[in-house]
Amino acid sequence: MAKDITPRAEDYSLWYTDLVTGAQLAEHSSVRGCMVIRPRGYAIWEKMQAGLDGLFKATGHQNAYFPLFIPKSYLSREAEHVEGFAKECAVVTHYRLKQNPNGDGVVVDPEAKLEEELIVRPTSETIIWNTYRGWIQSYRDLPLLINQWANVVRWEMRTRLFLRTSEFLWQEGHTAHATEGEAREEAMRMVRVYEQFAREWLALPVIVGVKSASERFAGAVDTLCIEALMQDGKALQAGTSHFLGQNFARAFDVQFVDDKGVMDYVWATSWGVSTRLMGAWIMAHSDDNGLVIPPKIAPLHVVFVPIYKSAEELQAVADAVRPLVEQLKAKGLQVRFDDRDNVKPGFKFHEHELHGVPVRVAIGPRDLASGMAEVARRDTLEKLPIPQAELAERIPQLLEEIQANIYRRALEYQQSHITRVDSYEEFKEVLEGKGGFISAHWDGSPETEALIKEETKATIRCIPLDNPQEDGVCVRTGKPSKERVLFARAY
Amino acid sequence: MAKDITPRAEDYSLWYTDLVTGAQLAEHSSVRGCMVIRPRGYAIWEKMQAGLDGLFKATGHQNAYFPLFIPKSYLSREAEHVEGFAKECAVVTHYRLKQNPNGDGVVVDPEAKLEEELIVRPTSETIIWNTYRGWIQSYRDLPLLINQWANVVRWEMRTRLFLRTSEFLWQEGHTAHATEGEAREEAMRMVRVYEQFAREWLALPVIVGVKSASERFAGAVDTLCIEALMQDGKALQAGTSHFLGQNFARAFDVQFVDDKGVMDYVWATSWGVSTRLMGAWIMAHSDDNGLVIPPKIAPLHVVFVPIYKSAEELQAVADAVRPLVEQLKAKGLQVRFDDRDNVKPGFKFHEHELHGVPVRVAIGPRDLASGMAEVARRDTLEKLPIPQAELAERIPQLLEEIQANIYRRALEYQQSHITRVDSYEEFKEVLEGKGGFISAHWDGSPETEALIKEETKATIRCIPLDNPQEDGVCVRTGKPSKERVLFARAY
Repeated sequence: MAKDITPRAEDYSLWYTDLVTGAQLAEHSSVRGCMVIRPRGYAIWEKMQAGLDGLFKATGHQNAYFPLFIPKSYLSREAEHVEGFAKECAVVTHYRLKQNPNGDGVVVDPEAKLEEELIVRPTSETIIWNTYRGWIQSYRDLPLLINQWANVVRWEMRTRLFLRTSEFLWQEGHTAHATEGEAREEAMRMVRVYEQFAREWLALPVIVGVKSASERFAGAVDTLCIEALMQDGKALQAGTSHFLGQNFARAFDVQFVDDKGVMDYVWATSWGVSTRLMGAWIMAHSDDNGLVIPPKIAPLHVVFVPIYKSAEELQAVADAVRPLVEQLKAKGLQVRFDDRDNVKPGFKFHEHELHGVPVRVAIGPRDLASGMAEVARRDTLEKLPIPQAELAERIPQLLEEIQANIYRRALEYQQSHITRVDSYEEFKEVLEGKGGFISAHWDGSPETEALIKEETKATIRCIPLDNPQEDGVCVRTGKPSKERVLFARAY
Repeated sequence: MAKDITPRAEDYSLWYTDLVTGAQLAEHSSVRGCMVIRPRGYAIWEKMQAGLDGLFKATGHQNAYFPLFIPKSYLSREAEHVEGFAKECAVVTHYRLKQNPNGDGVVVDPEAKLEEELIVRPTSETIIWNTYRGWIQSYRDLPLLINQWANVVRWEMRTRLFLRTSEFLWQEGHTAHATEGEAREEAMRMVRVYEQFAREWLALPVIVGVKSASERFAGAVDTLCIEALMQDGKALQAGTSHFLGQNFARAFDVQFVDDKGVMDYVWATSWGVSTRLMGAWIMAHSDDNGLVIPPKIAPLHVVFVPIYKSAEELQAVADAVRPLVEQLKAKGLQVRFDDRDNVKPGFKFHEHELHGVPVRVAIGPRDLASGMAEVARRDTLEKLPIPQAELAERIPQLLEEIQANIYRRALEYQQSHITRVDSYEEFKEVLEGKGGFISAHWDGSPETEALIKEETKATIRCIPLDNPQEDGVCVRTGKPSKERVLFARAY
């Protein structure tokens, strides 16, 4: 199976697609730009959802659900918002089909035209803030801390599984606050939650920062983000958290009476991560043999592969493995005894490597005699002889070690791929060479940012939080600059 | 608060709406026919989802996700299917908006018209079976047991919160099998899972049966269902499980090689329950004071309300309550100490009754002195004096008792509302009187079924499983009949 995977060195982009489809995580559907998330992929997404949902609830958020459709006029209420989303909207115009008069299939019934077109939500600020108007009267109704798990649609011309699809799954937090300070604090809290989730669940180090004005969310005052680095040196925006000021409250007239009896508009944030995060860990950790799944989000932690020639040998292995499986399950692990008899152990090894099972244990008659087992860890592909009697204790430790090792590896890669440059020559050299983040001075103007993007395809990924102030000159224009920002080519 | 709830006896329908909106479970959105599920409602739905998902996984199913959009031509492939859904479809025709040339808002960009219109899924058989064609080649790929949690859209003219909305949340199982027998067994297994879920989680007794041909799912060979009874004597279809034969496999050309090397079409089932189940337990259990939530799906099990006049008294109560809260939480319960100081205990009592918290505990200075607490159970509104020292043990028992009592009450109501009738007179009398299920002979023809529906608004809810065979004559036509079926007016 793994021989169907294009090596990273040959074609990174193809490697990624081979991996996602070969490991049966997802596939393109026959509907333009929409993907099918297959059971193997969805099981991982479910674990990610559970992890995120726990962090959201621990920070006081509740889930709710708002309509899929947004009246067209709502989008227009916030000027920058509509500007940002109008170009990629799926528009519902009719509510009925009828038999084709020529008898062939069905056609849209022209008599069932909507008075006002509905937009399939690309994001839900407008419909949610229109609803919040009814929920918020006084400071006692604040803060309102709500999250929604949902599908959204942004019509994309060029799509890539998980990373960019017309429909994707995500969560979107939408919070309302009495003061600017509280809202800004919330936006920061949630980008830190994303950072924590990336680090602890996805084993993914990220840079936390602020977006430049041109990369900001349409309708936000400030956009915070986490930026990850893939193995090909390209950056991936993995989550964003927006301070929306009073923009949406004004657009939808959401006012409240504060504790002194004064009316004011409500302050807002929104924040989201999506199935794009699947692409993030896949591209950051996997290798030419297949997926490397961080154990914390793995749907299957351990697979036992019996080595046998006869039914008796299989039975003997099964007898030895059964209690081990039970012991590991009792520790909360997901474990499989792969006793399929239509494929050979070598095939199973390759398949489990492709699927990214963190720990594989092979046991045969010789191991039964010696009391040992051959344990393979997916991250390093090392094979360790471990006494069977110690497996129940050692495997959970090993899983933690794998989780830590994957993170350490990604962190080393990231840190060795942040390059300070002071000239445009060097800037382009690094971009064409090892890639990664480039820390460079920039004159702060959107024009220069656009010029650099046009000339090099690199964008400003973010201005890191707590960025040291430092006098310098813009690598492109030579104009004065007070701090470095991070550039990269990005997905 | 409860005084805003219309009593059931006055207007059952208004009572329901008052309850759903008053308890903040859901509300109508400004988008025609679409609801907002508020945090209080969504928290219950999450518990229901978790319960169902556990049952699905325990019966070998995996989750996956398929596109929201279905190409129009797919719907036409299965003749009855398109017939059933064409009349209520949301149709996407364009993929972009542009600035209105007159400067006012945005308009649909006529240049961004889709070549083929996309239907927002009303159900996913077509897109899923089109995908299964690529997944199924041999009997080794079967059975394929997949479930999807998703939103679907069926354009409804008359909507009611949870019971009938244009967009709703649901799960849809779609399974593929090598033989007719296995598929029929699966359809039966899943309707039994729904029955179990209704009984054990929702405390809701249901009748399991088969739909008559005219009530069958569009594209099914047989539709199994669970039918519940509401307190106004109307039935509610609470879940369906379809044996689809080879209809969709033929429509999408999904064939497989069986273990003898013979090609055949795959056999299918689909099954679903939706947010409509929220309406089911609300209408079956609640009373004029508010919601009665089965403890197994309650987001909050116990609320402690302090009775106090001074800060010192509140502090003393808080000191006594804190360890109790911790003990109950340690037993997996969700517990709240309601120490809000801007409302009085009486207000809190009413509010928690409205919200359906199963157990309420009031503790004041006198209780501190006596070591007692006043425990109110939501189902019976009884108040029980219980020693504080026994609360940690008694409350979990009480919750089980409440769950059992709600079920028992609903079962008694159901059983006393299944009436055998042998004349059309009596049929109409019961319908206009106490309502409920009417067990009557029917000649088996769709024409008679339609006539009865037109004349009485009663429909055949189902032919119960294991229905006794019995000679009789149709209540409407006097033609011979071999068995009774269940009629009722229904939501």
